[in-house]
Amino acid sequence: MSAVRKMHDLAGADERARFSPYCWRTRLALAHKGLPVETIPWRFTEKEAIAFSGQGFVPVLVDGERCLSDSWTIAQYLEETYPDAPSLFGGVSGLAMTRFINQWATDTLNLALVRVLLPDIHAILHPKDQHYFRTTREKRFGMTIEAVRDARETNLTAMNAVLRPLNATLTGQDFLSGTGPAYADHVVFASFQWARVASPLNILDGFEAIAAWRERLLDAYGGLARATPAHFETVHGGQLTP
Amino acid sequence: MSAVRKMHDLAGADERARFSPYCWRTRLALAHKGLPVETIPWRFTEKEAIAFSGQGFVPVLVDGERCLSDSWTIAQYLEETYPDAPSLFGGVSGLAMTRFINQWATDTLNLALVRVLLPDIHAILHPKDQHYFRTTREKRFGMTIEAVRDARETNLTAMNAVLRPLNATLTGQDFLSGTGPAYADHVVFASFQWARVASPLNILDGFEAIAAWRERLLDAYGGLARATPAHFETVHGGQLTP
Repeated sequence: MSAVRKMHDLAGADERARFSPYCWRTRLALAHKGLPVETIPWRFTEKEAIAFSGQGFVPVLVDGERCLSDSWTIAQYLEETYPDAPSLFGGVSGLAMTRFINQWATDTLNLALVRVLLPDIHAILHPKDQHYFRTTREKRFGMTIEAVRDARETNLTAMNAVLRPLNATLTGQDFLSGTGPAYADHVVFASFQWARVASPLNILDGFEAIAAWRERLLDAYGGLARATPAHFETVHGGQLTP
Repeated sequence: MSAVRKMHDLAGADERARFSPYCWRTRLALAHKGLPVETIPWRFTEKEAIAFSGQGFVPVLVDGERCLSDSWTIAQYLEETYPDAPSLFGGVSGLAMTRFINQWATDTLNLALVRVLLPDIHAILHPKDQHYFRTTREKRFGMTIEAVRDARETNLTAMNAVLRPLNATLTGQDFLSGTGPAYADHVVFASFQWARVASPLNILDGFEAIAAWRERLLDAYGGLARATPAHFETVHGGQLTP
């Protein structure tokens, strides 16, 4: 194996703005396994930079001689390849239930969040990515980014409904995965890290249990997630606007 | 302990129509633990019949000298009281993730389903329950049962979005809980059993993985869930209408 593990990681105009929820799943899974990684900032339109992976999306992880993409594939690879490091899933039944939580975060949570975050994500992108992002997302949602912004109140109401079972669960326990964080926490936290990096909105107003759990995840793994600048830091140079 | 375990179980006009998703959670959990139970048909307005439990909802389980209500409380009680029987959760991490799936089924899945099923549920109720059901549900949803029926197409679209991550998960594995069914399967299946008993709609059209998994759960535990008549059996006396 090569000495350095490398991962292409989606970045905004400010290369410290690492906002992809799928890349965060992988970064937290690597940290959970105690595996250092060098991240390479990547933009949506830099398809040629990851062409070696045989597809066009991040995360792309190079681990020694292996090249992997798709966060769920990577998580399963890490669990199988590094079985002596702390488990991401907690056995067969844990893996099975984590698969549902992973799918829920992708299909339900992230869809609800992107309807709120879309205009803010567009605003932090590198200028060379903005046309690509606008075109692909406006086609996906069947409306302009500006129309999504105009529907924010409706979309916030829908998002709140999606957050309710998560908040109720975290009222009764400190982590989704049990006594400490594992991959079920990583995938759901990654969605809130996405919001934290890409948007000035406090989307957890009224969801105290999720907010407290998010703080625990920001502190986990030596404060890995907290070390990535939040939206106000990259957009306003670290100065909170009055 | 007394010789017979008893559970009050919500029934429709036909007392064989056992449609409560919360009661089904408990019946399947008991079957999983190998614990026989005598079910007592109960209607919404028979509050005095379960007053001994200190509250007004089913399931109510009497297990020897213990009286319990609330399906999640009952599941945890069964796991603690019968540790040598097959596990409902699969350990600490399994319990933690099951809690989220249980909460998702309650807050998201059942809410999406009831917006589709409400008029059908009302129609199968014992006449003495219909006024109570109409009053409480119309207050909860802020609209009449007839208005809910008029919005069925919209509500089906919303339900389909909720089912998507479940279908994707069950495309990749046979059960939510791992290699066999456990409580995560019970709580989610219970929602589809509710639909099967209360409504003539085939809500799983287009969701083949969920439909195949539902068949596996209908067969589980000696065909317990399949033994309860589906909607067409109680409403049309077992004859499929042309």
